[in-house]
Amino acid sequence: MQTQPTLPLRGLVAATHTPFHADGSLNLDIVERQASHLIENGVRVAFIGGSTGESHSLTVEERRLLAQRWFEATRGGPLAVIVHVGSNCLADARALAAQAEQCGALAIAALSPSYFRPRDLDILTSCCASIAGAAPRTPFYFYDIPSLTGVNLSMPQFLAQAGDRIPTLAGIKFTNSDLMSYQLCLSAAGGRFDIPYGSDEWVLAALALGAKGAVGSTYNFAAPVYHQLLDAFEKGDIETARARQMRSVQLVRLLAGYGYMGAAKAVMGMIGVDVGPARLPNRSLTPPEIAQLRRELEQLGFFDWVRR
Amino acid sequence: MQTQPTLPLRGLVAATHTPFHADGSLNLDIVERQASHLIENGVRVAFIGGSTGESHSLTVEERRLLAQRWFEATRGGPLAVIVHVGSNCLADARALAAQAEQCGALAIAALSPSYFRPRDLDILTSCCASIAGAAPRTPFYFYDIPSLTGVNLSMPQFLAQAGDRIPTLAGIKFTNSDLMSYQLCLSAAGGRFDIPYGSDEWVLAALALGAKGAVGSTYNFAAPVYHQLLDAFEKGDIETARARQMRSVQLVRLLAGYGYMGAAKAVMGMIGVDVGPARLPNRSLTPPEIAQLRRELEQLGFFDWVRR
Amino acid sequence: MQTQPTLPLRGLVAATHTPFHADGSLNLDIVERQASHLIENGVRVAFIGGSTGESHSLTVEERRLLAQRWFEATRGGPLAVIVHVGSNCLADARALAAQAEQCGALAIAALSPSYFRPRDLDILTSCCASIAGAAPRTPFYFYDIPSLTGVNLSMPQFLAQAGDRIPTLAGIKFTNSDLMSYQLCLSAAGGRFDIPYGSDEWVLAALALGAKGAVGSTYNFAAPVYHQLLDAFEKGDIETARARQMRSVQLVRLLAGYGYMGAAKAVMGMIGVDVGPARLPNRSLTPPEIAQLRRELEQLGFFDWVRR
Amino acid sequence: MQTQPTLPLRGLVAATHTPFHADGSLNLDIVERQASHLIENGVRVAFIGGSTGESHSLTVEERRLLAQRWFEATRGGPLAVIVHVGSNCLADARALAAQAEQCGALAIAALSPSYFRPRDLDILTSCCASIAGAAPRTPFYFYDIPSLTGVNLSMPQFLAQAGDRIPTLAGIKFTNSDLMSYQLCLSAAGGRFDIPYGSDEWVLAALALGAKGAVGSTYNFAAPVYHQLLDAFEKGDIETARARQMRSVQLVRLLAGYGYMGAAKAVMGMIGVDVGPARLPNRSLTPPEIAQLRRELEQLGFFDWVRR
Repeated sequence: MQTQPTLPLRGLVAATHTPFHADGSLNLDIVERQASHLIENGVRVAFIGGSTGESHSLTVEERRLLAQRWFEATRGGPLAVIVHVGSNCLADARALAAQAEQCGALAIAALSPSYFRPRDLDILTSCCASIAGAAPRTPFYFYDIPSLTGVNLSMPQFLAQAGDRIPTLAGIKFTNSDLMSYQLCLSAAGGRFDIPYGSDEWVLAALALGAKGAVGSTYNFAAPVYHQLLDAFEKGDIETARARQMRSVQLVRLLAGYGYMGAAKAVMGMIGVDVGPARLPNRSLTPPEIAQLRRELEQLGFFDWVRR
Repeated sequence: MQTQPTLPLRGLVAATHTPFHADGSLNLDIVERQASHLIENGVRVAFIGGSTGESHSLTVEERRLLAQRWFEATRGGPLAVIVHVGSNCLADARALAAQAEQCGALAIAALSPSYFRPRDLDILTSCCASIAGAAPRTPFYFYDIPSLTGVNLSMPQFLAQAGDRIPTLAGIKFTNSDLMSYQLCLSAAGGRFDIPYGSDEWVLAALALGAKGAVGSTYNFAAPVYHQLLDAFEKGDIETARARQMRSVQLVRLLAGYGYMGAAKAVMGMIGVDVGPARLPNRSLTPPEIAQLRRELEQLGFFDWVRR
Repeated sequence: MQTQPTLPLRGLVAATHTPFHADGSLNLDIVERQASHLIENGVRVAFIGGSTGESHSLTVEERRLLAQRWFEATRGGPLAVIVHVGSNCLADARALAAQAEQCGALAIAALSPSYFRPRDLDILTSCCASIAGAAPRTPFYFYDIPSLTGVNLSMPQFLAQAGDRIPTLAGIKFTNSDLMSYQLCLSAAGGRFDIPYGSDEWVLAALALGAKGAVGSTYNFAAPVYHQLLDAFEKGDIETARARQMRSVQLVRLLAGYGYMGAAKAVMGMIGVDVGPARLPNRSLTPPEIAQLRRELEQLGFFDWVRR
Repeated sequence: MQTQPTLPLRGLVAATHTPFHADGSLNLDIVERQASHLIENGVRVAFIGGSTGESHSLTVEERRLLAQRWFEATRGGPLAVIVHVGSNCLADARALAAQAEQCGALAIAALSPSYFRPRDLDILTSCCASIAGAAPRTPFYFYDIPSLTGVNLSMPQFLAQAGDRIPTLAGIKFTNSDLMSYQLCLSAAGGRFDIPYGSDEWVLAALALGAKGAVGSTYNFAAPVYHQLLDAFEKGDIETARARQMRSVQLVRLLAGYGYMGAAKAVMGMIGVDVGPARLPNRSLTPPEIAQLRRELEQLGFFDWVRR
C-alpha cells in the first residue's frame, strides 16, 4: 500500500481543471476520471480550484461541491488534495478553508485579493492570517502570481514576516519569474519553507536552483514528459532534461496561441478526460479550432510523448 | 411630489459605502441613514455595491441583502438606486442583476472580470451581454476602471460593438483618465450613450468636455462642494467652479494619504453617518489616525464646506 | 510693433518638427518656412527640439545647428523660441542649454533622463539643477511626460523641492494625464509657476482647470482650430469650444492610426511646410499611405478647418 | 600563447564600468587596470560602453575615446573587446559601430532606441540593420533588456526576421526574465545564434537551459565566484553551483540596497580598480555609505570569496 504524500511537496502537483458540461454547468462526474488519470500518470498531488481550475469563475457553492467531490473521489487512495481557497472576499476564503480542513486536505493555498490589492506586506500577511486561521491544523501556502493578481510584493520579506504570524505557513506556490527572489525564498529561515515552482515551461531552471516540487497545469496532460525531465535531471543527464523541457516549451507555445485555457481543456478531452469548455472570460475553442489544434499536436509528436 | 430620476444621469450619483459593524460584519441598519443623508444633500441617485461599496470583499449573500435593504429604504422616495452587480464570476453577476431588476433598480452596472482579463472587446462584450441578459428590462452600464481591473480596452470601440449586442446598453461609468476616449464615447452613435464621469477630483474637466453626470465616492460626504461647482459651471462662473474643484482635490489628497477607503469611511462617521471600518484588504484607520484626520479636515475647512 | 512673448506662456506654443531631406539628413532650409507659417497662424512661441522634434534621434551637433538656425530665422521677429535641451547625457544637455542662453532663448526645457530613471525627486532635481545651471539667466521648464520617459514622480512635490534648488525654475511642461496633480501644480507656491499643458486633444479640460498656455504638435498644423477653441472658451461659449476640441480629437485619432509622427510630418507637407519624413525608430509614411491620409483628412474637413 | 576568444561566447563576459575622476570627468588611465584585472581573473571578453558602462550618460566623443583606449589597452593580449554602440540616435550608433569595426572589435552590440520605442519587430529590425550595416564585417548582437528600454518584443520572432535581414547577426545579449523565450532563442534556426545570458543572479538557471556564455557586471568584481559556479555545473556538482549562485544573490541583494550602480563602482575601488563614482541620474555613494558597504561585504565574506 502506497503512503499519502507529505510536505514538502516533491515532484509534480497537477493544478487541475474544473470540469464543465458543454453548457458551462459544473460536471462533477468527471472528477473521478481526472483523479484516476493523474494516478495512472504517477502524479500524487492534485491542486484544485486554482487559476487552472477557473476558481474566479465559479460560485462559492460550486467551489464547495467541487472540493467535496474531489475528497470523495480520492478517499483512501494515493492522491492527496490541496485546495485553493483564495478569493477577493476573505469570508468566502475562510469558509472554503474550513471545509478543506474538515475534509482532510493535505494543504490549502490562497492567492492575494486582487481587485483591491494589499498595499504592503503587513496587509497581505493579515489577509493570509485570516484565511489560514480558518483551517488551523492545515498547512497554508501563499500562492504568488503577480502577472494575474498585480500584487508584486517581496516574497522573501513575506516569509520573514508571515513566518511569525501564521503558525501553519508551509511556504509559497511560486508562479513568478523573479528567480533571485526564488532562491532567497528557498533559503529563507534555514530552508524551512516549501517553495514549489509554478512555471511549467522553465521548471528545469527552478530545479537547478533547488526546487523540489512543481505545481502546474501541463502536468495534467503531459506528466510523462516532465517525469522524464525530473529523472534526467536527478541523474545528471542535463541534455535529456533540456530536450524534455523543450517539448514543454513547444506545447505551451502552441496552446498559448489559442489563448491557453480553452486549448488546455481541449487537450484534456483529446486524451480521454473530457473536462469540457472554459467559462467566460476565458475563451473556449470552436470545433474547427479543436481539430486544428489536434493536428498541430500530432505534428509536434505530443500524443507519442505522453503515451504511457 | 418629486419625480424619480431618469436616464441619462444628471448631476451627482453617490457611490455609497457598505456599512459594517466594528467587527466587520454587515450593519444594514445604517442604510436608511445613508439614504436620508444623500437626500438631504440633494443627491438623487445612489450607486450601491461598487468599488466604494467594497463589493469584492462581500459575499454574494451580503450583496443581495445590501441591495434588498437599499430598495426597502428608498421605496417611494426621491432617491433612485443603481446596483453594481459585477464579479469575477458571471453567474454571481447574473444572479445579482436579476435581483436588481426585480427590485426596480434604475439601472445596473458591472465592471469587467479582472482576475482573468478579457483579451479583446469581443470577450468583454460577451461578458457584459451575459450579465445584462439577466436583467432584460433594466438599463446596463459598463463600469470602466482600468486602474483597478487592469482591463484597458478601447471604450469607443466597445460602444460600437456592444451597442448592437446588448439591447439594454445605457452607457459607461467612465473612471478612466483618457479624456480623448471620453470625448469619443460622449459623441459615439450620435451621442445616444450616457457616460457619467467617475473621477471626482477632476470632474470640472469632464464637465467642460460635455459630462452631464458624475459617479463618485466623495459625493457621499462633500456633495455641497460639488453642487456649488456644478452651479458655478452652469452659470459660466469658471473661477468659482475651479475653487470648488480645488477643495475636492485637497480633500482627496488628504484622504489618499491615509489609504483612502478607510479614511473616507471615517469621514462618513464624522458627519453622522457611521458606516464603520473597511474590510481587508483595505485598511481601517486606528482611533489616533481618525483623530488626526479630523484635525486635518478642520484645518482644511472641510466641516464648513459641507455644512448645509 | 508686436512685443516679444513673455512668461508665463499664454495661448499656443508649437512643438515644432525637425525638418529632414528625403534621405533623412537635416534640412535646415525649411526652418524659415516653419517660422513664417507659425507667425501667419498667430502662434507666438516655438518649442524646438522636443519629442515632436525627434531630438532623441538627432546628434548633438544637429541639435546645435537646428537651434542656431531657429534663432537666425526668428531674430527681431514676433516669434520667440524655447529650446528643449534634455538628453540622457547631462553633459550634452548642459552644452545645449549654454548655447540656448547665448542665443537668447525665451526659455529652456528638459525632460528627465529615461534610460536610467531617477529613483526619486532628489535625483531628478539634481539632474534639472545641473542642466539649468548651464543657462543661469534663462527660465527653465521641466518637461514631464511619463508615458515616454517612464519617470512618474510627483510634480507637486517636485515644485516644492526644485523651487528652492533651481533659481531659474519657471514651471513644468505638463504632458501627463493626472489632472489632480495638474491642479496642485497650478496652485503650488501661490500660483507662481507656469504649467503649460501638453495634451492637445484635451486642452479644453486643462483650460477649465486653469491652464493659460499649451504646448503641442498639432498647433503646427491646426492652430486655427485651437484659436477658435481658446476664443470660445474665453467668451464662455463652451459648446463651440467643445466642438473645436472634437475636431482636434478626430484629427489626433486619425494620425494615431498611422503611427502619429510620420503622419503629422506628412500633414505639414500637405499644408505647404515640407518637413520631410521621420527618422527611425519612428516610421515614415509611404506615398500610398500619404495619399490615403490626405483623402481621410479631406473627408474630415481638415483643410477647411485650417484655411485662414 | 593564448588565442583570442571567438564566437559563440563561452564563459564570463564582463560588462565593464566606465571610469570617472571624482569630479565625474572621464578617467581613461584606469582602463589598463580594468583590463589587467579581468585577465588576472580569467575573464577573456570585455563588453564596454553598455548599461554598466553608463553609456547613456556619456557624450559620443567620450564613448569614442573610451573604446579607443580599450583597444589600445588590450592589443595583442588575451582580452577581446565587444563594444556596445546602441543609442537613441541611430547616426551616433552607426558612427560608434564603424569605429568599433576599424579597431577590431570581436563584436558590437546595440540595444533598442528607448525614448521612441519601436512599435513592432519590423521597425526594431530596421534599426538594428542600420547599425549593423555600419560595421559590415563585425558580428552584431541585439541587446534585449526590456526592464530598462520598455521595448518588449518577441525575441524568437526577432531572430526569425532579423536573421535574414542582418547578415552579421550573431545573436542576442539576453537580459530578460522570460526563460521560455530564452529556450526558443537558443534553439532558433537550428541553434545557430549565440544567446549569452545577462542576469548574473540567476545564471545557473540559464546554464541548465543551455546557456554557454554570460554577460554581466558582477563578473568585474566577483569572477572567482562564477568560475567556481561554472566549473561545478560542468562537473555535475549542482550543490556547489547552487551555493556559489547564492553568493551571487547575496552580493546583488546587498548592492541593490544601495542603488546598485554607485555601489558596484565602489566595490571596484575596494578591490583595487578605482573606477570612481557614477554619473547622474545614477547615484554615487557617500564616504560613510562606502564604509558601511565595506563592512557588510566583509560580513558576507565577499573579500574571501574573490581572493585569488
